[in-house]
Amino acid sequence: MSSLDYLFNPASIVLIGAAHTGIKLGGVVLKNLLTFRGKVYPVNPKYDELMGVKAYRTVGEIPDSADLGIIMRPASEVPEILKELAGKVKCAIVVSSGFAEIGEHELQSEVKGIAKEAGIRLLGPNCMGVFYPGNRLDTFFITPERMKRPRKGNVAILSQSGAIMASLFEAIRVSNTGISKAVGYGNAVDIDESDLYEYFLQDKESDVVVSYIESLDDGRKFVERARALSEKKSLIVLKSGKGASGSAAAFSHTGRLAGRYEVFHSILKQFRIREARDFDGLMDATKALSYQGTSGKPSPAAGGIGNRVCIVTNGGGSGVLAADECMRQGLDVGTVSDEKMNRLRGVFPNFYVLHNPIDLTAQVKDDDFLTVLNELKDDYDGFVIIALPNVLGITERLGELMKHFRKTVPKPLVFHIPTDGVSNRIITLLEKARIPVYSSPERAVRGLTALLLRP
Amino acid sequence: MSSLDYLFNPASIVLIGAAHTGIKLGGVVLKNLLTFRGKVYPVNPKYDELMGVKAYRTVGEIPDSADLGIIMRPASEVPEILKELAGKVKCAIVVSSGFAEIGEHELQSEVKGIAKEAGIRLLGPNCMGVFYPGNRLDTFFITPERMKRPRKGNVAILSQSGAIMASLFEAIRVSNTGISKAVGYGNAVDIDESDLYEYFLQDKESDVVVSYIESLDDGRKFVERARALSEKKSLIVLKSGKGASGSAAAFSHTGRLAGRYEVFHSILKQFRIREARDFDGLMDATKALSYQGTSGKPSPAAGGIGNRVCIVTNGGGSGVLAADECMRQGLDVGTVSDEKMNRLRGVFPNFYVLHNPIDLTAQVKDDDFLTVLNELKDDYDGFVIIALPNVLGITERLGELMKHFRKTVPKPLVFHIPTDGVSNRIITLLEKARIPVYSSPERAVRGLTALLLRP
Repeated sequence: MSSLDYLFNPASIVLIGAAHTGIKLGGVVLKNLLTFRGKVYPVNPKYDELMGVKAYRTVGEIPDSADLGIIMRPASEVPEILKELAGKVKCAIVVSSGFAEIGEHELQSEVKGIAKEAGIRLLGPNCMGVFYPGNRLDTFFITPERMKRPRKGNVAILSQSGAIMASLFEAIRVSNTGISKAVGYGNAVDIDESDLYEYFLQDKESDVVVSYIESLDDGRKFVERARALSEKKSLIVLKSGKGASGSAAAFSHTGRLAGRYEVFHSILKQFRIREARDFDGLMDATKALSYQGTSGKPSPAAGGIGNRVCIVTNGGGSGVLAADECMRQGLDVGTVSDEKMNRLRGVFPNFYVLHNPIDLTAQVKDDDFLTVLNELKDDYDGFVIIALPNVLGITERLGELMKHFRKTVPKPLVFHIPTDGVSNRIITLLEKARIPVYSSPERAVRGLTALLLRP
Repeated sequence: MSSLDYLFNPASIVLIGAAHTGIKLGGVVLKNLLTFRGKVYPVNPKYDELMGVKAYRTVGEIPDSADLGIIMRPASEVPEILKELAGKVKCAIVVSSGFAEIGEHELQSEVKGIAKEAGIRLLGPNCMGVFYPGNRLDTFFITPERMKRPRKGNVAILSQSGAIMASLFEAIRVSNTGISKAVGYGNAVDIDESDLYEYFLQDKESDVVVSYIESLDDGRKFVERARALSEKKSLIVLKSGKGASGSAAAFSHTGRLAGRYEVFHSILKQFRIREARDFDGLMDATKALSYQGTSGKPSPAAGGIGNRVCIVTNGGGSGVLAADECMRQGLDVGTVSDEKMNRLRGVFPNFYVLHNPIDLTAQVKDDDFLTVLNELKDDYDGFVIIALPNVLGITERLGELMKHFRKTVPKPLVFHIPTDGVSNRIITLLEKARIPVYSSPERAVRGLTALLLRP
């Protein structure tokens, strides 16, 4: 068992700073831990019982040792608490803030030293901790009412920032994707993104790893581990602090040096580590890669599939916008072969436009999309379907047809459907069939790009 | 009265190709016209009455002349219909498709010639026509169930494509913006974007003009009119057909030459005509400019306001992402002056980060945002507020506070709030107060950019 396993699969947890009410952060965490599958030892000097769980006045009173400690006390108390935990826990999450991020570098160094000496692997300080639905483990100090938890899925989230963690949770939930494990690692005095990359290399539940980074301590280790992870999984990095002002902010946020972004960017490119430009770009790629999972061989993680894209639309203008984005992304919207065009010409009305983008016009019928896909499935590497549901010919049946197609042909396939009232049911059907739907033609193309091109 | 006035303010309309049922396109349009404030003459050779309105077998039978004709018959019949309409209407919308967009250039030329000879101004062919809520005029052949109409507002939409028109309607509606007038002008054999720019220069109901273009016939006229319009209103152009494949698609869609995009792009830049990169970029700018309206002097249309931006957040990571986007957009996230920092230091907890971005942390209270705005309102040109509603300190009260601030200080101000469950009410309050809310930090910055920088 790797020492990081104790973060996700502890048999028992000590919660220092547990509280009796959900108004206090230590109460929120205790409440979240009530569903945890292992044993929980809440520690609070004033209570013998908290939320129905036997509580302990001090760490020393706990009869057993535990795998994981969670520290929710003010920063100044953390060194002493860690000393008490020596020999008692294998791993600790320091949720408390008040360290390097506000200039308290000495206190942070002290904490780091004590943990090292005590042989405790440390997550944080100034962090959200761990969310692992597979084990009903949730150390977040924000209630599910204030921060809805997404369903279980194949996306791992590693975020230095708690705010971004919350935004990612919401975005993952809205895009009908799910989370395997999430880790907020804050100031990263011990466990950092590189350690987590190594762990997730072996994690069978995660196909996609989303990594939000504000600062790095060891660039060499990062590149080595990120590269190794990228060979096996879909790693997507979002690095913030790109400009001078952003760097200053990132520094004050976690107390680590943000570094020169240009250097970082070119290294990622050189080592073919996938990088998102911004939050929406991160989510566009994540959605596509998560939906594709590992079922669609060849795996996008292992290498580029190809760049030939076919766009099928029932609205000319939207098809042109998608073609423009393909050009920007380096995807080739090559023309349909004469042979295939003649075959399609034989079954379609003469006003359908059978170049690429293929425009099925306002006269479209659901089955037309399937006809095109079946005819051209071997001619292109991926497909962008744009279904504008404003016309009578587009119905829920489209969702059913695509579900069946997806089962038999696992090729990269993304949709753009505007979130108009009548389209909600089609979107639900498609996404249940693991076909990602995007809110604009260009975002759909950006999703497909993540499936087709190696970074 | 300009001849284009007959498009928006006709006293009477002749509808050729009217039908008795909403299953036919001519029936959809007739139904939409039932609420029109002027007189409607439906023409159909088989009926004396359609949907409760007296109908005419031929155009000749109509007793009066009319301002506007709408033609919904097959392409091949259009030349004859236009000849019949000579002297009968001042302006005509040819909704029918089947012209240059499918290679029927001769037929299109014929139609153009007949209209010119008859002194009829022509919109189309292959177009959506006109939507003008101020006059309850709606010539679109898609039902409101299939394509929801946004409320009345200050955004004019000029779209060559019907598909993009539908997508824009949905995006405008979702962003709580409204439409003044919308025109789908299709193949543009007579009335084109340049003519419409000239018209909208004088249109008091429109502050923002959104122009989706696939192809241009007269580049010189376009630049001249676009430039003039940009001096008085916020014109935003989205040009599609940027690549070789996109151009080919744009050609087959409207039958006009798409041209070299690079040339177009550099000309727009040279003449400071605002251009959107893609659909989302178009909507980000439109929302901000529409909300700002003409109340916020100096007008963004008239010139740049300044590039000094203050970011106020309660989540460090999101603030850094916003700062990064500011850098990309050429906005300056300059540090807070010593004097103001000391004043804020006096009223805020010591762990608040008072550089820029200002991070009010998870301990934030609603009033903190107002405190910062009041203190710094004269130090910056615009503000990005990021309110992550996952913490207890953010409540609906934030909406009320901002509403009041907005009334007294009309400075450019945009929000990012993730669309989490608890935030919906705050978003509603803010948007009612004409403060635009965006779904990501970067999109908020892109909205603000449209308010601050001259193209």
